[in-house]
Amino acid sequence: MNYRIIGKTLGIILMTEALLMIPSFLISIYHNQEDKYPFLFCILLTGAVGFILYKLKTEKKAIRIKEGLAIASFGWIALSIFGALPFVFSGSIPSYIDALFETISGFTTTGATLVNNVEALPKGILFWRSFTHWIGGMGILVFTVAFLPVVGGFQMFKAESPGPTADRFVPRIKDTAKILYITYIALTLMQMALLLLGGMSLFESAVHTFGTVGTGGLSTRSASIGAFNSTYIHMVIAVFMVLSGINFSLYYALLKRKWRDVLRDQELIFYLAIIFVSTLLIAFNLKSTLYRNFGLALKDAFFQVSSIITTTGYTTVDFDLWPSFSKALLFLLMFVGGCAGSTAGGVKVIRILVLFKLIKKEIKKIFHPRAIIPIRAGEDKVIHNDTITGITSFVALYFFIFMLSTVLISLEGIDLESTITAVAATLGNIGPGFGLVGPARSFSPFSPLSKILFSILMLLGRLELFTMVALFAPKSWRNEI
Amino acid sequence: MNYRIIGKTLGIILMTEALLMIPSFLISIYHNQEDKYPFLFCILLTGAVGFILYKLKTEKKAIRIKEGLAIASFGWIALSIFGALPFVFSGSIPSYIDALFETISGFTTTGATLVNNVEALPKGILFWRSFTHWIGGMGILVFTVAFLPVVGGFQMFKAESPGPTADRFVPRIKDTAKILYITYIALTLMQMALLLLGGMSLFESAVHTFGTVGTGGLSTRSASIGAFNSTYIHMVIAVFMVLSGINFSLYYALLKRKWRDVLRDQELIFYLAIIFVSTLLIAFNLKSTLYRNFGLALKDAFFQVSSIITTTGYTTVDFDLWPSFSKALLFLLMFVGGCAGSTAGGVKVIRILVLFKLIKKEIKKIFHPRAIIPIRAGEDKVIHNDTITGITSFVALYFFIFMLSTVLISLEGIDLESTITAVAATLGNIGPGFGLVGPARSFSPFSPLSKILFSILMLLGRLELFTMVALFAPKSWRNEI
Repeated sequence: MNYRIIGKTLGIILMTEALLMIPSFLISIYHNQEDKYPFLFCILLTGAVGFILYKLKTEKKAIRIKEGLAIASFGWIALSIFGALPFVFSGSIPSYIDALFETISGFTTTGATLVNNVEALPKGILFWRSFTHWIGGMGILVFTVAFLPVVGGFQMFKAESPGPTADRFVPRIKDTAKILYITYIALTLMQMALLLLGGMSLFESAVHTFGTVGTGGLSTRSASIGAFNSTYIHMVIAVFMVLSGINFSLYYALLKRKWRDVLRDQELIFYLAIIFVSTLLIAFNLKSTLYRNFGLALKDAFFQVSSIITTTGYTTVDFDLWPSFSKALLFLLMFVGGCAGSTAGGVKVIRILVLFKLIKKEIKKIFHPRAIIPIRAGEDKVIHNDTITGITSFVALYFFIFMLSTVLISLEGIDLESTITAVAATLGNIGPGFGLVGPARSFSPFSPLSKILFSILMLLGRLELFTMVALFAPKSWRNEI
Repeated sequence: MNYRIIGKTLGIILMTEALLMIPSFLISIYHNQEDKYPFLFCILLTGAVGFILYKLKTEKKAIRIKEGLAIASFGWIALSIFGALPFVFSGSIPSYIDALFETISGFTTTGATLVNNVEALPKGILFWRSFTHWIGGMGILVFTVAFLPVVGGFQMFKAESPGPTADRFVPRIKDTAKILYITYIALTLMQMALLLLGGMSLFESAVHTFGTVGTGGLSTRSASIGAFNSTYIHMVIAVFMVLSGINFSLYYALLKRKWRDVLRDQELIFYLAIIFVSTLLIAFNLKSTLYRNFGLALKDAFFQVSSIITTTGYTTVDFDLWPSFSKALLFLLMFVGGCAGSTAGGVKVIRILVLFKLIKKEIKKIFHPRAIIPIRAGEDKVIHNDTITGITSFVALYFFIFMLSTVLISLEGIDLESTITAVAATLGNIGPGFGLVGPARSFSPFSPLSKILFSILMLLGRLELFTMVALFAPKSWRNEI
């Protein structure tokens, strides 16, 4: 393993992080808040450590697969270790483990929080907490590949991009990354403008936009989006959550006027169909139980469905109080997630779709045992057998990690519903679950060990399991054939 | 589809069922119970309907795939429809839907019950209720193939045998089926003898042996095996549950003195390892919470672990009162199930093992993208790609059905833990779950619609999903390629 190139790239990542802390510092100065000096100190420290690492001399410049995995894994860990410092030094979250949990929750766009009184946090911290969503949403490595002169772009890009297919839709990976970030910035600016139009302050518009387009879910309010009593704001955020859960390469296709590519995208159709059907079912369930007004039921159902399927985690109401049927549907959506190539977490719609196709194929096989039946993602796109194995083993690993973590978290001695949904909500990068981790609660009652496990689950989920698992797998699993 | 051959075979199955009702009738006469006339009537009715169907004239005698699926599915449904009659006519379970649920629970070796006061049932009914476990455990079609002159043995055998590989370990399928049944009968007689030695009455020894070797779980007592205050009896049943969860072809290998085949069987090793580790973990957890005596904790842990992993469902204590960690482990075991080719239900150990191997392969693939990596079940056994797809699509379908049913059952408005475990316990042919369907409760509070859904889940689980799903799948899924 070429440790020097890894160190050097981590240096670039940390220097970038120091730069990305500056906006929070400026906001702290502007509002003259007590967290300005902590931010200044963190920027200097992170930048200095980054610079020292960057100065490492290395001869070989090639990044191989192993180095790519190491850079992605350790890059995200380093990012979190330094990103947690402002919380500690400002005194907002005194415990370092808690600060690390909160930072990882931010970068991985999970949105689970340990802070019970969000309103009391200083503005610089509030901004940084949500800006980590924005950075983590599209990815710090993709950012590095897009805008900085680094080598081994494709390995890093692949290790960080969500979904089974890390498409490069233009020949150079650097250009692909750039297009992704430009689309991301455009989406961000659009939503901010719309929220401003709805009467939200500039500061809160920015924070909630970061949480939305990054599918994160941290808010400036304890009551999340429910604190804003405006159907307009609820709808803007709900729609942008749905938009952020769509494969970003489709926006590029739109820009290139390739309408057919977009309209015939099976993953997109399936994703929108799930949202549509779930929203309707929950709305009817709510209308027949808690709500008098069907329109209101429809609005709240749509918001919560969009929030959970895109793994954002914003809420307008406490869905933990909803009837069992609605909760069961939301529970199911926790495992679906958004589309590949979006900022959303979870298993991803395309993987579920391929599993359905596998089942369909198996049924055909029963009647035609000797037939060779290819699996297609579109009319002329046959999915390669290796991709299918990649998908099935991803889903298997997802559920094994889910099951194992459920058993470990059950040592806390809490009820099965809270345990299961806490694990699902962190591994899927969602945020809130049911019961003790419901929308009106926080993860603060858990023990430090559980918080560390949740932090690992969030990182595993964000880096799509195999990046980290492969790096730490037993040697025999990696070498022997 | 050749409906006449299907009808004819269903006739044979029903005539067999009529014969299999005779022991219950004799027991009823011997004890002079009120259910003797109902049994006589049911035997005559079932036999007569069977005879009429058997007399159907058919020219073509070949059973193709479609007919095999239809015979298995409709065979099990017919078996249950007529098997439920004694419950209704004797007045033991007046509601026909309830009686059907109880019968399907028996034949599919689930062991979920609607009867709250088991001790009040007449002896003939008690015997029949558990004898259905014995019939369903090894399978009525396997019985038919083994002992009756029917055609299309292999299709029927395959449709009913649990596990991804329906091995014929001797050249003729009829002989394989015969060996399986002889082993099954030997196991049955051994356990009965051991229970008699432990002081259990002949009647109860028989009933509980049927429930054990068939991995069913229905008892003569409301408190299940906990009603017998004897460590010896608990241990005999626990050990025989484990034995019944092992691939029956391994007993034949033992008989042929192929020790190495048995000792190197990866599924067997993995199965025993899971039981060993789970038992220890739960015993330690119990010792540190509810129990003072480690030996007692170990005994109860072993019994409950064996019962859940083999999908039997017998209990010596109410594990719903156990600490969260122990419950979470049992919850996990609900999805494992026994070995392929045993009488147990669930996903089956071999499938879990193959999923692990898939993950290992995927990790190797990351480091060696171009390598061709075969998946092996043993030193010289490469698993064919089609078998792997069969396994992954089975597991995917299992979880889809599980998720969808959870949503449907949640319409009952009960808590998520009870909902999830009720679905897992019926689909996995286990019996009890947690909460409202815990060991001390029954399925009686559910609505008739839910009971029908549970009945379908039990049949789906017993026939390993694809047999029934393929039969009822949309035409386009079966024909177009």
